[in-house]
Amino acid sequence: MQIQIIDKQSVAQHLTMKRTVELMADAYTSLSSGNVDSPLRTALVNDKGTVLYKPAYSKAAEIFCAKIVSIFPDNAAQGLEVTPALIVVNNAETGLPVAIVEAGYLTSLRTGAATGIATKTFARTDAKTAALFGTGGQARHQLEALLCARNFETVYVFSRSPDNATRFCNENADLAPNCKLVPNPTRSVLKSCDVIATATTSPTPVFSDDEISDDVFVSAIGSLGPNRTEVPEKTLLRGSIVVDNRPAALAEAGEITLLRAAEKLPADFSPVEIGEVLNRTAEAPQRTPIVFKSIGNAAQDLVCVAELLHLLEGTDNARTINL
Amino acid sequence: MQIQIIDKQSVAQHLTMKRTVELMADAYTSLSSGNVDSPLRTALVNDKGTVLYKPAYSKAAEIFCAKIVSIFPDNAAQGLEVTPALIVVNNAETGLPVAIVEAGYLTSLRTGAATGIATKTFARTDAKTAALFGTGGQARHQLEALLCARNFETVYVFSRSPDNATRFCNENADLAPNCKLVPNPTRSVLKSCDVIATATTSPTPVFSDDEISDDVFVSAIGSLGPNRTEVPEKTLLRGSIVVDNRPAALAEAGEITLLRAAEKLPADFSPVEIGEVLNRTAEAPQRTPIVFKSIGNAAQDLVCVAELLHLLEGTDNARTINL
Repeated sequence: MQIQIIDKQSVAQHLTMKRTVELMADAYTSLSSGNVDSPLRTALVNDKGTVLYKPAYSKAAEIFCAKIVSIFPDNAAQGLEVTPALIVVNNAETGLPVAIVEAGYLTSLRTGAATGIATKTFARTDAKTAALFGTGGQARHQLEALLCARNFETVYVFSRSPDNATRFCNENADLAPNCKLVPNPTRSVLKSCDVIATATTSPTPVFSDDEISDDVFVSAIGSLGPNRTEVPEKTLLRGSIVVDNRPAALAEAGEITLLRAAEKLPADFSPVEIGEVLNRTAEAPQRTPIVFKSIGNAAQDLVCVAELLHLLEGTDNARTINL
Repeated sequence: MQIQIIDKQSVAQHLTMKRTVELMADAYTSLSSGNVDSPLRTALVNDKGTVLYKPAYSKAAEIFCAKIVSIFPDNAAQGLEVTPALIVVNNAETGLPVAIVEAGYLTSLRTGAATGIATKTFARTDAKTAALFGTGGQARHQLEALLCARNFETVYVFSRSPDNATRFCNENADLAPNCKLVPNPTRSVLKSCDVIATATTSPTPVFSDDEISDDVFVSAIGSLGPNRTEVPEKTLLRGSIVVDNRPAALAEAGEITLLRAAEKLPADFSPVEIGEVLNRTAEAPQRTPIVFKSIGNAAQDLVCVAELLHLLEGTDNARTINL
């Protein structure tokens, strides 16, 4: 068996944020129209962390994909990745494994691009001001995606640690030649924000409902788990919730599960999927603020991998191993 | 991320059948005592085949494993493997992916070793005569395992195609310096067989109950699926069934599901596991013939991979890639 190896550098070199945002539109419309088969993930847990197995199949892309992603919080202290991941790709015609792709960078990139397509879809077209909560591993791609979606003039950067916000703005100024990055602003600036992106590990809301404007768009991609929410109850209840995948969000998004458990959302609550809006089988919600909650789906990984295989086909860049 | 690559040649070089039979005893006792976490596999299906994702975790072995195995019958016509497979190994302390192992050969080897440990456990100690049904991809390791378990003087080889049986005996004579391999015998020899190993794709029984002796031991590792059985109903009902893993066997072994559907086995039928016999939490069944039905479990793969990593640790044989 000959297997192509696509490492982090190759992913970074071949997938731009602009293209990845387009790919997320494909991923979400395919997911909502049932053109990608992505069964519930399997989790194996020990006392140090969790390994998730997330397979998917797309007839159109002609591949099977499985992302194996680990979540080991203690890794940070050892200077190791907290969420290392790889993807195994199998050919749809023969079942043969054909590629192994580094997927830590890819996950961050496509999670950024999720905020990108959601911002393109739901934010004011003349949005000028954004806030970014969180300066961890996902933050750079969140920022890049915001800048890809709208012509922001100012992005305010919030972090639990002021030093981290300052460092983040310095390190990522390259992404924002036409935009001011402002670390550690006063909370009052939130009222002026057209978009808020949250990429934190906070178990509780990172802003309060009275701090934000009525027509802000919120992209919440952090704090996964049924007992965690980055967005306050009031915002969720007076606005609208859009999700990437309904079954997964109903099971795993604390933004929804906590409100259902408290009977503040009806038992039959059924949020619209972004893919349904994109493929026009559902209307964009009318009530603002709109909150996009992303759990993350293997379909997002699959479209990126299909694109990488396509771009690398027949090039000298293809590294292979024999197994 | 640095990942060790263990190819087919390396597996073949480092894992002997004798050692793999011992490893199967570990695998089965761990499985029956709950020391390996191996959730139900996930299957993705298209019109050409199926890809199975089979994860497992062992605290004792300090690894997570996931076998990705494809079953694509049309591959044979193209000279490709019908069941190509690989295993991704993640470290239990950090979750980092640490190895990728070719698993087509490994699967055949450990499936042979399953017949080996079962024959050691259930066959007459003075067994001299065996029959092997099937001369496909699994057959060589079935033969090797039989010869590893008992001092057979004669092994009769049955195949749908007489040419295949003859070829198989010629090609595998190297395994059997002290044993006669007899292709295409008359059916009457079955009465003299102490052990029968079936490794076919037959949907229906490959022998009839009146052809076999009363105290034969049968190891049935082929024909997977709830509508397929290699062993006749009468043999199963008058004898005893031993399985590798109860939940999997009850769901997927045609030898059991067909009899339960026909209400010939009770709804609460609960076959003993070989691991329970090996770790002495259950007695070996008294009623003969004993039929061992193996579905195959990720625990078997996991113990082999753990052994390979141990054997290759710190050697110059370790091939690695950076991802």
